Order: sequence, then structure tokens, then C-alpha cells
Amino acid sequence: MSDTHSLDTLVQALRRLPGVGQRSAQRMAFHLLQHDRPGAQALAQALDAAVQQVRHCRLCHTFTEAEVCATCLDPRRDASKLAVVETPADQAALERTAAFRGRYFVLMGRLSPLDGVGPQDIGLHELLARASDGLVQEVILATNFTAEGEATAHVIGQALKARGLTVTRLARGVPAGSELEYVDLGTIAHALVDRR
Amino acid sequence: MSDTHSLDTLVQALRRLPGVGQRSAQRMAFHLLQHDRPGAQALAQALDAAVQQVRHCRLCHTFTEAEVCATCLDPRRDASKLAVVETPADQAALERTAAFRGRYFVLMGRLSPLDGVGPQDIGLHELLARASDGLVQEVILATNFTAEGEATAHVIGQALKARGLTVTRLARGVPAGSELEYVDLGTIAHALVDRR
Ligand SMILES: [Zn+2]
Ligand SMILES: [Zn+2]
Repeated sequence: MSDTHSLDTLVQALRRLPGVGQRSAQRMAFHLLQHDRPGAQALAQALDAAVQQVRHCRLCHTFTEAEVCATCLDPRRDASKLAVVETPADQAALERTAAFRGRYFVLMGRLSPLDGVGPQDIGLHELLARASDGLVQEVILATNFTAEGEATAHVIGQALKARGLTVTRLARGVPAGSELEYVDLGTIAHALVDRR
Repeated sequence: MSDTHSLDTLVQALRRLPGVGQRSAQRMAFHLLQHDRPGAQALAQALDAAVQQVRHCRLCHTFTEAEVCATCLDPRRDASKLAVVETPADQAALERTAAFRGRYFVLMGRLSPLDGVGPQDIGLHELLARASDGLVQEVILATNFTAEGEATAHVIGQALKARGLTVTRLARGVPAGSELEYVDLGTIAHALVDRR
């Protein structure tokens, strides 16, 4: 047992955070112990509280402390439209637009066969049940426009269409405020195909 | 109280880590709660243990769980040489070279008047006492070769020399393995001035 055992253990624990390597973890541990011990204690308490209290909404799978999240409980939301997003952060991005007032299903991930993430891990079965509740008229696939996000949208879309549901996808196109000269070719090509 | 209060609190607590903004903090919280709850609990425990157990070595100021750290206690180390470094990470870098077998004083920071970090915050008084113990023959300034590190070395060096102590500084020069063509001009100029 070295005389810095608890410090070494802290550095290893910080390395489990995504995007944090050995050097970042050391810098974080140094900062907390040298300059912000109250911050270290606040973080420890926040981690414990979140692990104990955060669970998944029974209806949309996002993080919540209740059985059903506030969005799903909101009676003003349009039950005929269901947006499918990858993460709570993506849902928050959609909410910030104030352009969508329907309901959500949050996959809490994306299909990634190479990482062993299959349909059961993104709740495909529960999504199909949710979309077949008789109220949903349109499912809007709002997964990311990455290779994995597109593949996820494709698989989910096929499964929903096989049940006779109407499925749409967010439009690909030129970002608002862009000058065409500076937009990449693939984006312009997609904007042409999806032209209104 | 929202239904994601503990999640929001966790994101805010993660933002107190250096280099972690809102988006990184959200990604970390998502990762821990969705994929690594044992990691979150391990981190909480490691934080609590480190805050409780890690203190500063009475002699060299580095982090330790004992009153005096293992390096300071090691009788095989040369008490006539004292290297002054900014952080435990810098000390570890020097140790990896196996080229220094003396003792250390760890400033646990650097002078930074704009951030309110003055001589008392880097233990200048304690360093002067340590270097005047009658055993130390040479103090090697091994602060970083940044503007703040150089300024820190200058201030410490002046104070040590005023007490009649021999003070040296790590050589500036061309990194081992470098081709001159790709080395910046300032480094080459310093290597010329400090030529052997
Ligand atoms: Zn919900
Ligand atoms: Zn020590």
C-alpha cells in the first residue's frame, strides 16, 4: 500500500469517464485536491444521489426520477406525433427549437453491431408497442445523421412500416445561415434530393 | 423540483472538473448512468476517500497519506540536491528519467499574480527553510518552461541566491530525437545560448 493509494485510486476512477485519459485524470485529481475539495465532495454526493434516484421513464425511456417523465405526463403534448431520438441531449436540442410539440421515444443509444449494441439495447420492442398504442399517427425518426444514426433510423423505420405506421425522417439539407459556397457537396446533394 | 433534479445536479458537479464544459459534463453523466453505474459509485467512493486521506508532505508539500512522503523518507536519496517542481506530475516526469536521485520540493502550483497566486501559495517560505537545512548544496529549478514557470523560477532563484545557496536551472535546448528543421526558432536560440 503506497502512501498515495487513495490518490491513485481516484485517478483510475476518473479515467472511467468518457474522453478522460491518464493525464486529464491526473490534472482533475490535482485540481480537486489542491484547489476544490468542496467540489470533490459535491461531486461524490451528486454521483451517489443520481445513481440512487435516476431511472428510465416507463413510456419514453429517458432519464427521470419518476415512473413517467414530465414530458410524457404533459397533457398539452400532441399524442399523435412521436419523435425518436438517440439521447436526452438530442431531445433537448429538439425541444430548444420549440418546433415540435409531440411526444418522444429516447433510444438511449444507437444500433452499433460492432460494439454489441443490438435492437433490444435501444428498446425497439418497447418502441413498437409505444407506436402501436392507437394514438400515434406519425413516427418522426430524429436519430443523428451519422452512419450509425442513419442505420438505426433505417432498421427502426422498416420495423414501424411493417406494422403499417407512418414514418418520416428529419430533412437533410443546407444549415440555416449557410452560404452554399462553404457547404460540403454531400449536404448540397441531399438538399437537392429532399428539395421542397 | 424537476423530475431530473439529481441528474442536473450531477452535470453541474462534473462541470467543476477542469476542462469540462456543459456538453462534456452531459456526456459523462449520460455514460455513467446509462452504461457504468458501478463506475459512478467507484468514483464517488474514490473522491470521498481521497478528500479524507490525502494531505501534504510536511517536508516537500507533495500529496501523501502520511506525515512525510515516501520520497522524503527514502534514506538512499541524495540530501545535497533539491529539485523544485510545480506539481506531482512534474515530479513523476523527472523520476521516470532516473537521472535525478536527490530530493524534491513541490510548489503545488506556480506564481500567477493575475490569478491571485502569490509566493505564500507556493510555499516559498517553507522552501527557503527547507533549502537552508545545512544539507542542501544545490537547488535545481525544474519549473515548466512556460511564461509562468520561468517567472516562478526567477523569483524563487533570487530568494535562494540571496541566502547564499547555489541555484541551477534545467537546460533549455533541442528535444532529443528532434530534427533542427522542425524545431521552433526560440528553442534553437536557447540551445545556442546554453550550448555545452
Ligand atoms: Zn417519458
Ligand atoms: Zn515529501
